[in-house]
Amino acid sequence: MVLIELKVENTSYRTIWPSETDDRVVRIINQLALPHSFEIVDLRRAEDACFAIEEMQVRGAGLIGATAGFGMYLASLQAGNETFDQDLIRQAEKLKSTRPTASNLAWAVDRMLAKTSAGKTPEEKRTIAKAEAQAIADEDADFCRRIGEYGKAIIEEISARKEGAPVNVLTHCNAGWLAFVDHGSATSPIYAAHDSGIDVHVWVDETRPRNQGASLTCWELGQHGVPHTLVTDNLGGHLMQHGLVDMVLVGTDRTTGTGDVANKIGTYLKALAAKDNGVPFYVALPSSTFDFSIRDGLKEIPIEERSTDEVTFVTGLSKTNGELTSVRHCPPETKAKNWGFDVTPARLVDKLICERGICDASEEGILSLFPEKRKDPATP
Amino acid sequence: MVLIELKVENTSYRTIWPSETDDRVVRIINQLALPHSFEIVDLRRAEDACFAIEEMQVRGAGLIGATAGFGMYLASLQAGNETFDQDLIRQAEKLKSTRPTASNLAWAVDRMLAKTSAGKTPEEKRTIAKAEAQAIADEDADFCRRIGEYGKAIIEEISARKEGAPVNVLTHCNAGWLAFVDHGSATSPIYAAHDSGIDVHVWVDETRPRNQGASLTCWELGQHGVPHTLVTDNLGGHLMQHGLVDMVLVGTDRTTGTGDVANKIGTYLKALAAKDNGVPFYVALPSSTFDFSIRDGLKEIPIEERSTDEVTFVTGLSKTNGELTSVRHCPPETKAKNWGFDVTPARLVDKLICERGICDASEEGILSLFPEKRKDPATP
Repeated sequence: MVLIELKVENTSYRTIWPSETDDRVVRIINQLALPHSFEIVDLRRAEDACFAIEEMQVRGAGLIGATAGFGMYLASLQAGNETFDQDLIRQAEKLKSTRPTASNLAWAVDRMLAKTSAGKTPEEKRTIAKAEAQAIADEDADFCRRIGEYGKAIIEEISARKEGAPVNVLTHCNAGWLAFVDHGSATSPIYAAHDSGIDVHVWVDETRPRNQGASLTCWELGQHGVPHTLVTDNLGGHLMQHGLVDMVLVGTDRTTGTGDVANKIGTYLKALAAKDNGVPFYVALPSSTFDFSIRDGLKEIPIEERSTDEVTFVTGLSKTNGELTSVRHCPPETKAKNWGFDVTPARLVDKLICERGICDASEEGILSLFPEKRKDPATP
Repeated sequence: MVLIELKVENTSYRTIWPSETDDRVVRIINQLALPHSFEIVDLRRAEDACFAIEEMQVRGAGLIGATAGFGMYLASLQAGNETFDQDLIRQAEKLKSTRPTASNLAWAVDRMLAKTSAGKTPEEKRTIAKAEAQAIADEDADFCRRIGEYGKAIIEEISARKEGAPVNVLTHCNAGWLAFVDHGSATSPIYAAHDSGIDVHVWVDETRPRNQGASLTCWELGQHGVPHTLVTDNLGGHLMQHGLVDMVLVGTDRTTGTGDVANKIGTYLKALAAKDNGVPFYVALPSSTFDFSIRDGLKEIPIEERSTDEVTFVTGLSKTNGELTSVRHCPPETKAKNWGFDVTPARLVDKLICERGICDASEEGILSLFPEKRKDPATP
């Protein structure tokens, strides 16, 4: 087993953790400031957690879940002793409504509600909430670490077939440690492979409109020393046509029990190109990202529609004065549309990489890893 | 026949024209300044034409050809009487080397060389060059106008099937009048349909890295009053999955005699999505864009590799001070790759729309419209 240490200038960080000095405070890395500056933000109230999720100081399937878990812990601190359950449920609803597509969000909130309900007094419930939020975060990190081990084997195999030549992985958006508590989903096999000496190179999709590939994935791969190249979202097809991609590896915000994968807008286009060029398409996810309640991803997964300013403006450091600046590249009156995710049908997904192993992107494949989700055939 | 008048604030412009006051000067619209300001630039020497093409003051298949034609005219004015032919050939080589992918470029330069060679004296050759450059420009505009008429019939048919509901056309990059001398290739059917009262709406791909969709296509559609919506390059697949696209209509920089289509990077991904969702995929082109000398687009069309600054920086008007500013959205040390075009194989193209009509994207289809290109079967 390889120990993966994720380092920011030689200090290891998680994306969310309880303050070392005040256990009523939860700390996060403000991802809106990356890659230009590294800022830590303190969350003191459930509202801060809602704000952090909504404004995307934190984002990514696992981290949204973990932040919701800690948000529920903060809510438990705020909840009145007389009105504890109502107060907690109110905050639960608010947290759930911050982002519609990620299934880890509702999963984490519901898990917090179920666990805390076992407590007999508000104080006992608060103690449970604290432990459970930490458990969700630890579990996310551990599941991602295991995804890394399973996924590494795939990269290893390609590396052997290529006799040690660099394995080229294309990824979309950021499913890195910044999107989880640690390790990441799609990046975890990459880190594991890199750390064990396999020559791996990552094509990083810029990922318009919010550029999480350019600003987050490039940053974290760079911090970890993994060779990578930034490309526009338009380039992946050309790369695959010319044999420059050995595998596509992405994360997901919600995956149905039948293997349909909701992920950052544009993922579906890469899956089509992978299929057309015989490039294997892998999706890495901890089980918290499954939504076993729905079967048809295209019809049933709610797709978040976001501000059109994300399309008409691009933010970065000004070449002129080094300041964070937004620039508009279209006429001022231009209208835009901005859906944040798309759904890649299971037929385009080769394998899912989960904390329990690798399976087909199909109901049977998924149930083979998670047999406890199999409905009793006697149940109508 | 509908008269298409392309208007910029109520004045009709072509993208290139001889100066009204000095016939030794050729004028262009500086497309680098759009959509933020409308600037006209004077070309006085062949070197100015090279610069305009290389730096993308002018771009787009037809306009590159027309600028090369006028560049050869300017070269003829510069050429010494004693050294006319050598001088012209030297400038021809320089012009040809400015952009590698567009086939209109070499086509126009070679046409100018062939025509001028018929002149007996340098002065006669200059007169021929002037007329021929204008003929190339006029022919480009006329061919694009005809493409509009043929393509309009397709939009009309969809409109009738939808009982007048808006016809949603998705386009990539700018194959508008700005990319030609007038009318455009992909936009010409849109303008023709709009001008004849058909309800047509255009999804405009932003087209990273140079954002010609956001900055040029949105601008020219807006000037002409055609309803349109800007989307990131990632969105098209989702739109097609949800029935929001009736047809894809793009231009091309070079199309083989077998129907393989080189166009702006990312076109191939949209063609895959169109195929996967049963959306017809059309490519509009004047015959000057065909390259009958090659058969395998993927293997044989040279793909231009451009500066990686186009990927790591985005240019637009600053929200803060309204000035044209470049911003970097990735870490300073991030490396990038930037190929400018990809090749959509003929199997993904439903029809080609040319100045002579509509044909299959196949050797037989193309030869049915251009029988003069059919090789004598006796020729080995």
